[in-house]
Amino acid sequence: MTEPRTSVTAAVLVIGDEILSGRTKDKNIGSIAERLTEIGIDLREVRVVPDEAEEIVAAVNALRARYTYLFTTGGIGPTHDDITADSIAAAFGVGIDVDERARAMLLERHKPEDLNEARLRMARIPHGAELIPNPVSKAPGFSIGNVFVMAGVPQIMNAMLDAILPQLSPGIPVISETIDAGGLPEGTFATGLSAIAARQGGVSIGSYPSMTQSGFANRIVVRGRDAEAVAAARAEIEEMLAKLRP
Amino acid sequence: MTEPRTSVTAAVLVIGDEILSGRTKDKNIGSIAERLTEIGIDLREVRVVPDEAEEIVAAVNALRARYTYLFTTGGIGPTHDDITADSIAAAFGVGIDVDERARAMLLERHKPEDLNEARLRMARIPHGAELIPNPVSKAPGFSIGNVFVMAGVPQIMNAMLDAILPQLSPGIPVISETIDAGGLPEGTFATGLSAIAARQGGVSIGSYPSMTQSGFANRIVVRGRDAEAVAAARAEIEEMLAKLRP
Repeated sequence: MTEPRTSVTAAVLVIGDEILSGRTKDKNIGSIAERLTEIGIDLREVRVVPDEAEEIVAAVNALRARYTYLFTTGGIGPTHDDITADSIAAAFGVGIDVDERARAMLLERHKPEDLNEARLRMARIPHGAELIPNPVSKAPGFSIGNVFVMAGVPQIMNAMLDAILPQLSPGIPVISETIDAGGLPEGTFATGLSAIAARQGGVSIGSYPSMTQSGFANRIVVRGRDAEAVAAARAEIEEMLAKLRP
Repeated sequence: MTEPRTSVTAAVLVIGDEILSGRTKDKNIGSIAERLTEIGIDLREVRVVPDEAEEIVAAVNALRARYTYLFTTGGIGPTHDDITADSIAAAFGVGIDVDERARAMLLERHKPEDLNEARLRMARIPHGAELIPNPVSKAPGFSIGNVFVMAGVPQIMNAMLDAILPQLSPGIPVISETIDAGGLPEGTFATGLSAIAARQGGVSIGSYPSMTQSGFANRIVVRGRDAEAVAAARAEIEEMLAKLRP
């Protein structure tokens, strides 16, 4: 809303029929979101697309043009349905081949005689890409331009993020303060909150209801990059809530 | 991949700064995906966008043009950051006002004297929309054209889906069979699986690794709308795996 734009933005592209079928529940979006927020990078958009080359290419090209960074998850294993690397090469208009650095990484896990054609698919890397190490199962991810291509298995994805994040341009971290409105219904404080939001520039104020055993619980979150502005908004909100409490 | 296209498709649009910040972990995508799959509707795309009108309008117009149905979650509460209804009206180019049917629903929960301006925001409905009942907290969702606008709180979203799903054109349900490859590494069966996938038309075959305490566990999923084709693919895959097991 009124949150100041910074120059460091990101999108996530989840590649996965299994997410769209509901069979697998995505855990990566939330992890990436948290970790980007910590270093001041604004996650601005997420898309989930099926394992189809034309859908992946279109989404990659739309998102990499629009945001500072794009992170993809999924589709880099050895089976026929793992088409992410080829799709990324197509999106960038570059060739793709078995990469000797990637083959060497696979040989850390597999005997040369076990490095069959299927496993070598995991060493197919678009020309010009840098590898992202995979300490869990060796098959690397890669980055090309502003696109970081990671595994879909959460443990591996997180290990790849560990390697990627220190390379990124950090933004100015957002300060986030959560005010527990307790059982006060949103409808009792919404008008006051709106007035505060209009008055307090440079912060974004959100109200997030959730349901508990005993009814709604509401949290108000103030976010911004200027500590004084966040503190001022928080103080105003707490004062308003105190007046409303019975 | 090779899955047959059907004419009933869907997209989900999650509207939520709190998801993009990582503070709240989305649970709705997986629920909607499961429930659509059950009735044969193909969820083809998911997007998450921030609470910004121009982002919402652009995503709504892109997705509603492309898929049979679009489901949105989030942003229909009483606070200033709840801008979904206005954004949907803008996307459709229609007006928006307090809807008397929606006001009556709110009066089932709130005394007339408590129906303040903020709460009346929840009765603002784009012209021409149909209401979606909310048995949990009364404030309705709505549908307009092929777009279904639901709450973000999972319990309410699911209750709204209960009302929506019987109204939709069901597709032919996809039959899904999961074959547990156990500890067999993907690299050992990927070549054989690829050959089966190429041979067995009309089904899509995916291989989904996950990590357990004892290493990778791999599941192979065969999906399709023709029971015989799914059974044939399953039989071929089981035969192949049996040969590979020590």
